[in-house]
Amino acid sequence: MSVNKPGRTILASTISKIYDEEIRQKVESLRPLRPEGPLLVGFLANSDPAAEMYARWTQKTSEALGIRYELRRFADKDLLEENIIEANNDDGVDGIMIYFPVFGNAQDQYLQQTVCKEKDVEGLNHVYYQNLYHNVRYLDDHETLKSILPCTPLAIVKILEYLKIYNPLLPDGNQMYGKKCVVVNRSEIVGRPLAALLANDGATVYSVDVNNIQKFTRGEGLSAIKHHVEDLGDYSEQLLRDVCRDADIVITGVPSESYKFPTEYIRDGAICINFSSFKNFSEDVKTKASLYVPMTGKVTIAMLLRNMLRLVDNREKIKAMRQ
Amino acid sequence: MSVNKPGRTILASTISKIYDEEIRQKVESLRPLRPEGPLLVGFLANSDPAAEMYARWTQKTSEALGIRYELRRFADKDLLEENIIEANNDDGVDGIMIYFPVFGNAQDQYLQQTVCKEKDVEGLNHVYYQNLYHNVRYLDDHETLKSILPCTPLAIVKILEYLKIYNPLLPDGNQMYGKKCVVVNRSEIVGRPLAALLANDGATVYSVDVNNIQKFTRGEGLSAIKHHVEDLGDYSEQLLRDVCRDADIVITGVPSESYKFPTEYIRDGAICINFSSFKNFSEDVKTKASLYVPMTGKVTIAMLLRNMLRLVDNREKIKAMRQ
Repeated sequence: MSVNKPGRTILASTISKIYDEEIRQKVESLRPLRPEGPLLVGFLANSDPAAEMYARWTQKTSEALGIRYELRRFADKDLLEENIIEANNDDGVDGIMIYFPVFGNAQDQYLQQTVCKEKDVEGLNHVYYQNLYHNVRYLDDHETLKSILPCTPLAIVKILEYLKIYNPLLPDGNQMYGKKCVVVNRSEIVGRPLAALLANDGATVYSVDVNNIQKFTRGEGLSAIKHHVEDLGDYSEQLLRDVCRDADIVITGVPSESYKFPTEYIRDGAICINFSSFKNFSEDVKTKASLYVPMTGKVTIAMLLRNMLRLVDNREKIKAMRQ
Repeated sequence: MSVNKPGRTILASTISKIYDEEIRQKVESLRPLRPEGPLLVGFLANSDPAAEMYARWTQKTSEALGIRYELRRFADKDLLEENIIEANNDDGVDGIMIYFPVFGNAQDQYLQQTVCKEKDVEGLNHVYYQNLYHNVRYLDDHETLKSILPCTPLAIVKILEYLKIYNPLLPDGNQMYGKKCVVVNRSEIVGRPLAALLANDGATVYSVDVNNIQKFTRGEGLSAIKHHVEDLGDYSEQLLRDVCRDADIVITGVPSESYKFPTEYIRDGAICINFSSFKNFSEDVKTKASLYVPMTGKVTIAMLLRNMLRLVDNREKIKAMRQ
């Protein structure tokens, strides 16, 4: 195979370390309120090696930046709910996250919503999603409490900023104007909120799942604050090829070891980002992609910690308002 | 086939009409506040014949009892969310329900949570579920605002009350003490909350799905307020047969036309209730069951309307508290 135009690979660690200093300073500024550093608690009740690795990395990153991290393991999944509620009510806990899957079915969505929004570092609470989908940036009318974004979609936005795809010369909320993205995954956790986020920032997003392909746009006119969704048709290789033809960015998140995005569909010079824990792009992706980000986990962890510090801020502001 | 011990079939309509008078009186007592009757709005964005029938029956029952019903149909599923939010904010709307499936995947859970809890007649809001699972009956510490129960599980409890399975001589919260139930369905909408409700009232519940069989109990001791869940093992015909051996009640909710619960597993004289829109019991169920309830939809509709009137009450109480 001739690799005459090798693209550049950008590692998540290169991008995540940009946030190290910001996080460290914030932890320092919270020192009067959290002398030992804020506490993040992870709940783990599976033996998924990807979850284990993610937990280990979160611990390592947290501790390097002055944040305390505690992993609480449960052999009995049914104990998780009560223990999460206890952590919700424990003033010593600043952030809570769950390593999914727990039950591996719709009960996981129930469990997810038991984490109170005030400590939901992953940004998975319904309130945060509803704000995201409606492009609402604050939790209150006075715009003092910032809403939280789900951490993986947010990490991908930050990666696109780093890669200079978000154009800082354009006004906020328009920095993806004119860009075409393909997102292969439409989960409620990452794919759908990501498509909405990018559309809210002006991009045209082709959202792909096994059933069909949809087009997300910001909607007509400047007044439309919510993204617009249009069904393009049932999934087919031909339709995928068509939407990829002029895609500036291809983002994959297929949770399967065997899945590979067809390299020949990628436009010459496109940006390729994979957020699955499996490598969704083949080795030859660099013959097409100008910039290639093979994994995103470390940026997600940085966003997790940033979200937690924002939640501490919000809680302290609410406390101050009540006094 | 010899049918020498024919059981009695009890129709849902026989049970639901018990609530007619209560609902009519309540509507009458609300007349000063809702001169034209309270308004229930149904959102329909599929062409599922079961949903159509359910909507038609809800309309018919509502109107017979003095409640206004409005079905809002959408060809474009993506318009539903904004229209539900509009109904949330419309003071003229008292209750909201969605005919699922809409998207047919996890997005349905997101959509469900966009119905504000103050108008969620189906009792599907996370707050109501969390209260159910923790056996919490009120929304406030002063115990003035009653929590809402999901309407199908509630309907089945009411059916069991009608069938004299709930024993009124036992104290509240213990009226199913000593009873053994098999529930074939563990959906987040019906099967799991139903198992928890029955366990909270003292029953031993064997919860069956395609993967495994679990045992729900109230937990040891009188102080345990939350049900306890134990895995009995992977699903097998043998395990199902075992848990059915001394089951007083068999409740089915398998959404499949071809599924039939094996009549030979039913204990002689057991109570059989089917809440699936498909007939999960064979015709010969009456050779085993003493009482057989083939469908539950009409009782569910009665509970829906009762829930709505309770929500109107709650909203009016909150208004009064604020004045």
